[in-house]
Amino acid sequence: MGDVIFAAKLDHGLFGILRRDAGEAWHAYIEHPFVLALGAGTLPEAAFRAYLVQDYLFLIQFARAYALAAYKSGNLAELRAAGAAMTAIVDVEMPLHIAYCRGWGLSEADMEATPEAMQTVAYTRFVLDRGTSGDRLDLDVALAPCVIGYAEVANLLKAHPATKLDGNPYAAWIEMYAGPEYQTVAIAAIDGLERTGAARGANARYPDLLRTFVAATALETEFWQMSL
Amino acid sequence: MGDVIFAAKLDHGLFGILRRDAGEAWHAYIEHPFVLALGAGTLPEAAFRAYLVQDYLFLIQFARAYALAAYKSGNLAELRAAGAAMTAIVDVEMPLHIAYCRGWGLSEADMEATPEAMQTVAYTRFVLDRGTSGDRLDLDVALAPCVIGYAEVANLLKAHPATKLDGNPYAAWIEMYAGPEYQTVAIAAIDGLERTGAARGANARYPDLLRTFVAATALETEFWQMSL
Amino acid sequence: MGDVIFAAKLDHGLFGILRRDAGEAWHAYIEHPFVLALGAGTLPEAAFRAYLVQDYLFLIQFARAYALAAYKSGNLAELRAAGAAMTAIVDVEMPLHIAYCRGWGLSEADMEATPEAMQTVAYTRFVLDRGTSGDRLDLDVALAPCVIGYAEVANLLKAHPATKLDGNPYAAWIEMYAGPEYQTVAIAAIDGLERTGAARGANARYPDLLRTFVAATALETEFWQMSL
Amino acid sequence: MGDVIFAAKLDHGLFGILRRDAGEAWHAYIEHPFVLALGAGTLPEAAFRAYLVQDYLFLIQFARAYALAAYKSGNLAELRAAGAAMTAIVDVEMPLHIAYCRGWGLSEADMEATPEAMQTVAYTRFVLDRGTSGDRLDLDVALAPCVIGYAEVANLLKAHPATKLDGNPYAAWIEMYAGPEYQTVAIAAIDGLERTGAARGANARYPDLLRTFVAATALETEFWQMSL
Repeated sequence: MGDVIFAAKLDHGLFGILRRDAGEAWHAYIEHPFVLALGAGTLPEAAFRAYLVQDYLFLIQFARAYALAAYKSGNLAELRAAGAAMTAIVDVEMPLHIAYCRGWGLSEADMEATPEAMQTVAYTRFVLDRGTSGDRLDLDVALAPCVIGYAEVANLLKAHPATKLDGNPYAAWIEMYAGPEYQTVAIAAIDGLERTGAARGANARYPDLLRTFVAATALETEFWQMSL
Repeated sequence: MGDVIFAAKLDHGLFGILRRDAGEAWHAYIEHPFVLALGAGTLPEAAFRAYLVQDYLFLIQFARAYALAAYKSGNLAELRAAGAAMTAIVDVEMPLHIAYCRGWGLSEADMEATPEAMQTVAYTRFVLDRGTSGDRLDLDVALAPCVIGYAEVANLLKAHPATKLDGNPYAAWIEMYAGPEYQTVAIAAIDGLERTGAARGANARYPDLLRTFVAATALETEFWQMSL
Repeated sequence: MGDVIFAAKLDHGLFGILRRDAGEAWHAYIEHPFVLALGAGTLPEAAFRAYLVQDYLFLIQFARAYALAAYKSGNLAELRAAGAAMTAIVDVEMPLHIAYCRGWGLSEADMEATPEAMQTVAYTRFVLDRGTSGDRLDLDVALAPCVIGYAEVANLLKAHPATKLDGNPYAAWIEMYAGPEYQTVAIAAIDGLERTGAARGANARYPDLLRTFVAATALETEFWQMSL
Repeated sequence: MGDVIFAAKLDHGLFGILRRDAGEAWHAYIEHPFVLALGAGTLPEAAFRAYLVQDYLFLIQFARAYALAAYKSGNLAELRAAGAAMTAIVDVEMPLHIAYCRGWGLSEADMEATPEAMQTVAYTRFVLDRGTSGDRLDLDVALAPCVIGYAEVANLLKAHPATKLDGNPYAAWIEMYAGPEYQTVAIAAIDGLERTGAARGANARYPDLLRTFVAATALETEFWQMSL
């Protein structure tokens, strides 16, 4: 099961060490009041709708980040993997997100016309800037809190005593990120980070990578905070 | 006098039209409570210190934006101008800023060790992203609210009935941006924007450029707001 | 029929004007001795094999150029189109190319291990550099001689009195680029260039765009020349 | 003396290892017939003039590479150093080069109007692409054959039995690169590469860095070859 494999990877390798050393910053993100309110089903619906709209705008920038990763590829295998990740966002995740948002009364046209919140700009452009100013490893580390963190958030909520899924309007959201498909994406991201880290000297660059990871985690935390 | 020439340029050309069409967003930035409190000398000193620290971190990213402009240059003249702007920030403006901050009890080492605020990240990385995803014109439009806006802010404060310079701890800040040296920088930025706009099809691209200008202005407004 | 629609577009719009103004440089590329020898079936097989290997390396960089286009996209529709173009190269065109090369006795591993020729480096990195230093329009103009030119080359060969397809070892290559699938790609590229040109001020930027187009055409010509 | 310190650095550290492992490719570059003909004073003047014009165009792209390095800087010290290197090219090296070329009957206007040769495009855009697709270390490694190699070329010529400086029209060129000012630049580049390599994991990335170094060296060799 995805969540078991996933859990086993949280304390090892490059991601595990970054996560551990991010310490409080990581927990502030993973166990944010927005997250816990999602689990308890107590989050005001207006807050969730605001989150969904910004998440739509966020995903466009995230797809750009994978396009950047593809551009920065050194060989066909890397290019193919990054291209597939970009396509997965644009052709699979976004249509699913749009369909899900429609269920919440949000049309794509309205979402597209909404200005990006400062929090959306801050995290997404930080990630893209790490990618253009650094290399693939800098980019992957900046992406990790989002890609991998969402899987941990969903698993945490599934195991949390205060979570209730029955009658919880956010249950589908939780189940999606706790589901095998997304868990597999997160596991692949952990493994990919490990490989890129090995190939591109993560050990020697660790202090710098940790700064990127902590800054990205803090900006993700602000993204939760924005909707409260 | 710089401020007279500057004022004459506020209603014409590409910058004048962007400024006019930004409407309320522009006024919210130029006449922000933080700005007016600087003029009246009523801004809490802690707010100003917080602003100075983030402005230090901001300037580093701004120098990177001019380095990006130099990289994107199509000929030696453009390269030289962008390089000179970058050097002016790094070798003139930053030492002046550091000396000024020292007078406020802030050491460079402390400022360098302070994490960037989300507002600093949001505006600076937005500018850099417009520069890497677009061309020189997109970059220059994203830079304009800061470079040109500070000259307008200082002139507005000098002329404002509620401004008092005697005994105002922020008088030196106001005088610096109202002074002939900075006014000349702002006038050159207006003229440079006009030239780049003509060479790179600003008319046909206007709706997109206005979106960039308004978004950058709103992020600058958040930068003032941050310190309150 | 693709080639008729294609031919009708060669004298109009942004591409038509660039092609016309490139003059001799365009004809030197389209009617290059390498091309004519392909049509006549007289090209030495060693030259064709050398070309195929470099074309494999070329396609990897071309996929990177479309990844860059995706990264530079301003909205989801642009992102999707550029992403689809990148995926088409990586997941369709490259496997076809690899299969075709296998028929010529060239394994993918061997091709991947071959160093890029200077001509391959020059054209591909020129295109990528136009894309990073400029905007989407600069990038699309730099890509045009290749994407659109190959369709014109194939149509020219099909209509050329000296071409013979019977028993020509290069007939499949000619038929592929003259076929409806590739002609549709080229027509879409012409139309896309027209749209991007309108949105991003091509008229005002024309002298600069023509310089890019001519330089890219000359580098493509060198790419043919390389294998002779 | 610069050349003694320089020589002592050729066999150690990251640069020394790259140079050693580049093997024949390095020697083909450093002891190229163009170089030896410069030393012997037997190079046709037309070849030298062609070289000077392309070197002018080359330097513009090299300044862009340092602007890119400045953009990619992670702190103020790096930014300042890269900015100073860019300024040194634009404000010192280029005026000297232009003055020197004038002595050879070449006006700046004529040089600026000359199209870049394919060899110029290939090397400069390869370097810039390593910089945008990789990080500062990838960029610095791609720049190294040029920046450091020219100092080695000049020292080699000064020590070479076939070199004659009396009455050699190229003596000033040799003396310039053998002189203390340029030797200091080259030594600083070796030291900078060492520092960047240590900070960004050169050991783990060595095979990839060597590929970049060898490719850049081969493209520099083509640059000599071009003028013959």
